[in-house]
Amino acid sequence: MKIGKNIVPHTAISTSSEQRIVVRGMDLSRDLIGQINFGDYFFLLLTGQMPDKAASALVNATMVAIAEHGLVPSNQAARMTLAAAPDAMQGAVAAGILGAGSVVLGASETAGKLFLRVEAEAASSHGGDLKAAARSVVTDLRSRKQIVPGYGHPEHKTADPRVAALFEVSARVGGGQKYVQLSRIIESVIPEVTGKDLPMNVSAAIPAVLLGVNFPVTALKGVPMLARVASLIAHLNEEMSDPIGFALANHAVAQQQYTGTPVKD
Amino acid sequence: MKIGKNIVPHTAISTSSEQRIVVRGMDLSRDLIGQINFGDYFFLLLTGQMPDKAASALVNATMVAIAEHGLVPSNQAARMTLAAAPDAMQGAVAAGILGAGSVVLGASETAGKLFLRVEAEAASSHGGDLKAAARSVVTDLRSRKQIVPGYGHPEHKTADPRVAALFEVSARVGGGQKYVQLSRIIESVIPEVTGKDLPMNVSAAIPAVLLGVNFPVTALKGVPMLARVASLIAHLNEEMSDPIGFALANHAVAQQQYTGTPVKD
Amino acid sequence: MKIGKNIVPHTAISTSSEQRIVVRGMDLSRDLIGQINFGDYFFLLLTGQMPDKAASALVNATMVAIAEHGLVPSNQAARMTLAAAPDAMQGAVAAGILGAGSVVLGASETAGKLFLRVEAEAASSHGGDLKAAARSVVTDLRSRKQIVPGYGHPEHKTADPRVAALFEVSARVGGGQKYVQLSRIIESVIPEVTGKDLPMNVSAAIPAVLLGVNFPVTALKGVPMLARVASLIAHLNEEMSDPIGFALANHAVAQQQYTGTPVKD
Amino acid sequence: MKIGKNIVPHTAISTSSEQRIVVRGMDLSRDLIGQINFGDYFFLLLTGQMPDKAASALVNATMVAIAEHGLVPSNQAARMTLAAAPDAMQGAVAAGILGAGSVVLGASETAGKLFLRVEAEAASSHGGDLKAAARSVVTDLRSRKQIVPGYGHPEHKTADPRVAALFEVSARVGGGQKYVQLSRIIESVIPEVTGKDLPMNVSAAIPAVLLGVNFPVTALKGVPMLARVASLIAHLNEEMSDPIGFALANHAVAQQQYTGTPVKD
Repeated sequence: MKIGKNIVPHTAISTSSEQRIVVRGMDLSRDLIGQINFGDYFFLLLTGQMPDKAASALVNATMVAIAEHGLVPSNQAARMTLAAAPDAMQGAVAAGILGAGSVVLGASETAGKLFLRVEAEAASSHGGDLKAAARSVVTDLRSRKQIVPGYGHPEHKTADPRVAALFEVSARVGGGQKYVQLSRIIESVIPEVTGKDLPMNVSAAIPAVLLGVNFPVTALKGVPMLARVASLIAHLNEEMSDPIGFALANHAVAQQQYTGTPVKD
Repeated sequence: MKIGKNIVPHTAISTSSEQRIVVRGMDLSRDLIGQINFGDYFFLLLTGQMPDKAASALVNATMVAIAEHGLVPSNQAARMTLAAAPDAMQGAVAAGILGAGSVVLGASETAGKLFLRVEAEAASSHGGDLKAAARSVVTDLRSRKQIVPGYGHPEHKTADPRVAALFEVSARVGGGQKYVQLSRIIESVIPEVTGKDLPMNVSAAIPAVLLGVNFPVTALKGVPMLARVASLIAHLNEEMSDPIGFALANHAVAQQQYTGTPVKD
Repeated sequence: MKIGKNIVPHTAISTSSEQRIVVRGMDLSRDLIGQINFGDYFFLLLTGQMPDKAASALVNATMVAIAEHGLVPSNQAARMTLAAAPDAMQGAVAAGILGAGSVVLGASETAGKLFLRVEAEAASSHGGDLKAAARSVVTDLRSRKQIVPGYGHPEHKTADPRVAALFEVSARVGGGQKYVQLSRIIESVIPEVTGKDLPMNVSAAIPAVLLGVNFPVTALKGVPMLARVASLIAHLNEEMSDPIGFALANHAVAQQQYTGTPVKD
Repeated sequence: MKIGKNIVPHTAISTSSEQRIVVRGMDLSRDLIGQINFGDYFFLLLTGQMPDKAASALVNATMVAIAEHGLVPSNQAARMTLAAAPDAMQGAVAAGILGAGSVVLGASETAGKLFLRVEAEAASSHGGDLKAAARSVVTDLRSRKQIVPGYGHPEHKTADPRVAALFEVSARVGGGQKYVQLSRIIESVIPEVTGKDLPMNVSAAIPAVLLGVNFPVTALKGVPMLARVASLIAHLNEEMSDPIGFALANHAVAQQQYTGTPVKD
């Protein structure tokens, strides 16, 4: 079954011959290996541009910020999967990545889109007043019973310590501050609209600093995803020598209740 | 159903409280965000140690070397998956990672284990003669019709350009050369045993340089896996604006043949 | 990090002791193994009810209808994945399933929701006139540049042969015809609204017959997913003895074009 | 990068035209939809043969036997994944399937291979004495510290109730008894060799009955995989209306201990 049009397979990312590999117009072996760090290479792969000093610092800083947070559900799912299928580490990594969805790690992207929406509505409907636009957008989300992505955190209730750290880096390296400021404006209007303090979390800080260095909004979801793979591999490497995968599942099993129909004897 | 023993859930990787996140004994926000690059953080997560200058250079260089190589099968599988399920980028990334198996990207790990095996057999059975041990191990692999992992490449037939680049970085930054030398010894005995030149590829060069900076052999498979996620995200970001996912599948469909039983009418 | 409320782990699906396994109130070994076919068991697992004769026939028929359709993208992705990672069949199956997304196999669910929406709007806004409601809903989808899920097919342009087969079974076994009729009403209004014939495909026929036997709308997506796993396993079993996985990828590679920046020498 | 030879894409499983879909030489709409149950169709897809009465009964019975067993690790991993990524049910199903590995659900295949090995060694080295061959193979596994796949169960310590149920069906429908008998012979020698009773579990009973009806040994792993997808979909459908996914993870988080380096202040 053929789906869609015939298109010649093509990519602007790389090409290769027997003698060399070209990535984004650079010779991989001559220009890149040993010349740039992996975070910078991710930026180059995505955008086709070498990151400037600010972009380099912030791509690396955001991935360091979001990579690891203990036995989160995706690390537990991955460790259970490795315990059941120890020969296929790639399967356990994949199981962990599949938890990078709209609820848990997708907020970096949805918060980024929120910033662009507030900015656009400020221009189109509020004479450039960002605070008025933020109030209007948050009120709209609230009325549709949606959360404000990137605000509030189940553990870091008064302040997510990663936010100040990322904003400090952004200021220090000269990253654009427009979305940092916008992220704070949104934080400030949330209590007015909702009656609750919901301090910004790392998932809003990530687009706040990255959109200021021309990181593409469409790839924002890739930042927590790539970062978490580093954490998943560390947890799975630990699982191989110090396993807790089945034990994690046993905790639930020990307490489980059957709420279905009783069996008829 | 309970499987295995009851064990208290535990990890040596990180812990957190409302005020801070601790990773490998360091305060994430104070000591790590903005202080180290993402490649170094991966080394820290895995090993609990900050990489020294050589380890930092080589972890980053190996991931840059292995991340991207065009429309490889896993990038095609991922792009087809995104075309079919565009709302779930994490699913497309997972589909791509699942191709990091024994045949394609697993050779970094199996080549690393090969080096350790040759080293061990040299000590135990060949009076320390690495070349004799290499000859013996390659002969054994050959007799069991197994490939020598990390040697030979379908495209880079005379030399994989990433090998020299990685070895140059290793020499420049002062990485341990023991496994670099061993990798060349194995390369030199392969024609004697098999009658064919099979030049080393990047998957042997990765453990050759990383084992020299105390990167754990059990986590070698994680290097291509983490690296390829960067490439997958770049390809999927390109797929969103310049789709070829279904077209990739159509090329095969257009030429497919049915080799089964003819239908009876 | 704790997310959400503490809830005692529970399920209404099954429980077990050393002596027996209870599924939906039945003793698995005494009441189910050897007593019912696998399609019926799927219905029981999902709904807690044994299917009646019509539901049994239609659950099985729909899964037979949707399971296999040749070298579709998800089968290609799975075969490429097995070629790269032959030791982990579960990974190749997972890669294939990840293509069961909104564009390709999700239409069974979205078409089912479309039927319920037309039914609800007929009652609330059109005095029970299904055709008027169908016209209004299709017009609305059209105006938002959305497709009508379950209508039109890239290969079966005049009629998807699986539709008539499923409707014949439904009539023969006495399944409820309400949604069958509604699916035809929608088919009839599409040319009026869009100017194009878009004959119903199997993804609309599946909810049309299943909603008539009380199959839960929330689980409709599970029908193509479970069915396709049977196909994936057959393709992967074929791949083991008659491999085409890498060849599928080579077809695209042979023709690929690099559309990026030329390298500077 | 091209890997392997150029091969024309082909499959013996199915082909299609605008008017019809042919599966294994049968017209899908005319010969299969509404004519056979889904379990039988799985057998046809895999083998190219319609199952006889015994094969039909046993393929369905084995999938009913293995599909569901409560909050096993893979169901927990899937429910956690859906909680984190509720928009992508296919991702949660994939995460669950990735736990169908060598330790947990792979034993159907490895037990089947064990039976064939014992049978082959009886012929080649023990003059046809199955018991002697079984004793020799179990002794060998034991000496290499490997488990005997399909024997012993963490919950069903004295007898797995699914075994007798499957064997009863096999006898009733006239399935071949050769591997049933062999499975009991192996069970009988285990206490001699290991000093422990390890009663057969469902994963040995599955190949015992399926190899007797010409189910291909290479596809045995597919039986628990396909079966568990039915269970996964039922658990995920339950998760949507009665969520426990995050709560499952919280149980472990509440008790977790940090065993790493203390932070230096």
